[in-house]
Amino acid sequence: MKLENSKGTKDFPPEEKIVRNEVVNRLITVFEKYGYSPLETPIIERYDLFSAKAGAGEESDAMKEVFTLEDQGGRKLGLKFEQTLSFARFIGMNPNIKMPFKRYEIGPVFRDGPIKLGRYRQFWQCDADIVGCKGVIADADIISLSLEVFKELGLDAYIEVNNRKLLRGIIEFAGIKPELADSVIISIDKLKKIGESEVRKELEQKKISDDKIAKLLSAFNVSGSYKQKIEVLKGIINNDVGKQGLEEIKEIFNYLSDEQKKNVVFNVSLARGLGYYTGPVFEGFMRKSKVTSSICGGGRYDNMIPMLLKTDKEYPCTGISFGVDVITDVFKEAKQLGDKKTVTQSFVIPIKTSKECFSICRELRNAGINADMDLLNRGISKNLAYANSMNIPYVIIIGAKELEQKKVNLRNMKTGKEELLSVKEVIEKLK
Amino acid sequence: MKLENSKGTKDFPPEEKIVRNEVVNRLITVFEKYGYSPLETPIIERYDLFSAKAGAGEESDAMKEVFTLEDQGGRKLGLKFEQTLSFARFIGMNPNIKMPFKRYEIGPVFRDGPIKLGRYRQFWQCDADIVGCKGVIADADIISLSLEVFKELGLDAYIEVNNRKLLRGIIEFAGIKPELADSVIISIDKLKKIGESEVRKELEQKKISDDKIAKLLSAFNVSGSYKQKIEVLKGIINNDVGKQGLEEIKEIFNYLSDEQKKNVVFNVSLARGLGYYTGPVFEGFMRKSKVTSSICGGGRYDNMIPMLLKTDKEYPCTGISFGVDVITDVFKEAKQLGDKKTVTQSFVIPIKTSKECFSICRELRNAGINADMDLLNRGISKNLAYANSMNIPYVIIIGAKELEQKKVNLRNMKTGKEELLSVKEVIEKLK
Repeated sequence: MKLENSKGTKDFPPEEKIVRNEVVNRLITVFEKYGYSPLETPIIERYDLFSAKAGAGEESDAMKEVFTLEDQGGRKLGLKFEQTLSFARFIGMNPNIKMPFKRYEIGPVFRDGPIKLGRYRQFWQCDADIVGCKGVIADADIISLSLEVFKELGLDAYIEVNNRKLLRGIIEFAGIKPELADSVIISIDKLKKIGESEVRKELEQKKISDDKIAKLLSAFNVSGSYKQKIEVLKGIINNDVGKQGLEEIKEIFNYLSDEQKKNVVFNVSLARGLGYYTGPVFEGFMRKSKVTSSICGGGRYDNMIPMLLKTDKEYPCTGISFGVDVITDVFKEAKQLGDKKTVTQSFVIPIKTSKECFSICRELRNAGINADMDLLNRGISKNLAYANSMNIPYVIIIGAKELEQKKVNLRNMKTGKEELLSVKEVIEKLK
Repeated sequence: MKLENSKGTKDFPPEEKIVRNEVVNRLITVFEKYGYSPLETPIIERYDLFSAKAGAGEESDAMKEVFTLEDQGGRKLGLKFEQTLSFARFIGMNPNIKMPFKRYEIGPVFRDGPIKLGRYRQFWQCDADIVGCKGVIADADIISLSLEVFKELGLDAYIEVNNRKLLRGIIEFAGIKPELADSVIISIDKLKKIGESEVRKELEQKKISDDKIAKLLSAFNVSGSYKQKIEVLKGIINNDVGKQGLEEIKEIFNYLSDEQKKNVVFNVSLARGLGYYTGPVFEGFMRKSKVTSSICGGGRYDNMIPMLLKTDKEYPCTGISFGVDVITDVFKEAKQLGDKKTVTQSFVIPIKTSKECFSICRELRNAGINADMDLLNRGISKNLAYANSMNIPYVIIIGAKELEQKKVNLRNMKTGKEELLSVKEVIEKLK
């Protein structure tokens, strides 16, 4: 047998997992500050949940990427490929849950798709959603939350916002039939990435007349502050759905502080793919980074749960999803973090004093210091080389001589400086 | 479609997930204090890894419970059913890793087995292991770690220890052929649970003669302190392997403090099933609890990785596994925790002051207070009922009158007491 990971999966050794945990902990801190509570749904779901979603308008490409399996009872199952679907099932199964319900969920999702650089078949998603609130104050809460996440992680990032109603209004204004809206939205979504002339070509291939294309694209030629863009668009778009979209965008900005507004950009062409979005959409980006793709994205999806549950009851939802892997990459970049190979702060080296060192180690740990010790009876130089290669900041050398004096030898691995101290003094120093 | 979880899986709503997170965070704190670093291995593994382990002597029952699947490329895969196997693969794939390597891993594992009360097909395991250390100082470290976990969680628990070498020595002493050792060990393991006469019956069925059974069982009839048990057994067992087992048990106890020894019991009949153990074994139990099954268990498995990797190189290992679900149950019991339905500490109720409340909420959050607000423009009484049903300790009511005075109305939901305070004063009070 060749030892290897299953295709498209990877291990996270300590030097990667330590920073990943740091990122996840910061995300959790912010989510909980914002009143989102944790939820855990299982990784295995009944397969008909996935097909129900496909029926609820989800693109079938995603369905193809569901890992499927059977249990011993012959039940068809699938591995979750996003957090939202299980969230929707949970809401449907818990009709007495208090609304609005704000939850976050962090964990692995799975897609049996092609492998590219940085694209894996198992990856972590971290979602925050609100169900039960129609007002865009909920969308403003999600945007506020995302900005706070950037701050907590020290990321120079911003959020683009738009509104699907505005896009529908613009398509109506251009005189394009509603049946073509989905297809047109896919092209519009690419404006920022491939530019106007390429999008024009795509729209021509979609058999949309030149004058309609011209009218459509004119609406995206707005610039300036969000207020200026809204003003200009208000002058162009005279249908109800478009006006409502603009009103919602304005209202969202009204909830934000001046400080927050600096990091929120109204991008008229943002659509977020096909998806199931019905109102505000948002997507986060780094300002200066090797990572140019989005670092988070989401929006309002008022129809998804009712369609899934086949109910007339309203389940307005809005939420955002952070890619834990990409967020970890930009966090490391922003903080200029080197590899931390271990969580250990101090490494105890016994010179024929293993038993005593075991007890001193316990004392350090009881005082809350991450401590480890040589378990192999290695010599001092080998132990120093080990501590050095692991980037452990302090080493504590203890021989019979030191024990006699009730002292230990604390060595700062960076400076090489050694001090003869009591264990209590070491604890005070390292705390 | 009927909305339901896939068979044998369950959701963890906030009231359960909040306490689960608390438990996991405490486990992590202790692991890191003890110098164990985090590792994450994928949930999907190549199927031949599981079959390689079956080849390495693992009972085939576990193999039957592996969830199997195929990717689009037709590769046979399985979902991890324990953490150890992926850990072994990781070690095999990273020959340059510094030894000893101490790691912990926490996450879901999967077993496609029968469903019983409290037994699920997806459950969390939390493992701490050391690879690269032959000496029982490593086993003492694992026991020490477990005792610290009990302390951190406030559990009145203890650890039973034994040694497989001692069991082999006792079997040899009884004159039972080594080929029967595995089968005899399975029966011996039940001594505590089903009693001597039932075990005697089992052994008779296994065609072991009465005099051998008598000799065998006599060795388990020891009582008193660990020291007394060791003394008595030293007088009986005169073969090398048994003596070595006793020596190791003594050495482990020597590393422990008097305080720790109070929570460590030498149980001569502890075997930990068939498993792959080669030396010390340990299993943790609650003293007084509804939970009578073990809450953690582990031991030394020096042969597993070499057999898996088909190598002569030595990979001595020892480790312990905590069942996160059972640990969460006993933690809730020990702490007498009620359901915490939300992480929110303060809930802001606007009286036609949504925009201002949004900003005050942001101020509270920036100060590190978990804050939420009404997003539905509900009346005061509905909002109070909501906060009450969610067990949110404080509510902050803000109308135009309060805003004029630059104050807010802080209500303690337990006492009903209201105070007119500035936001700053609220922050000081709630921090």
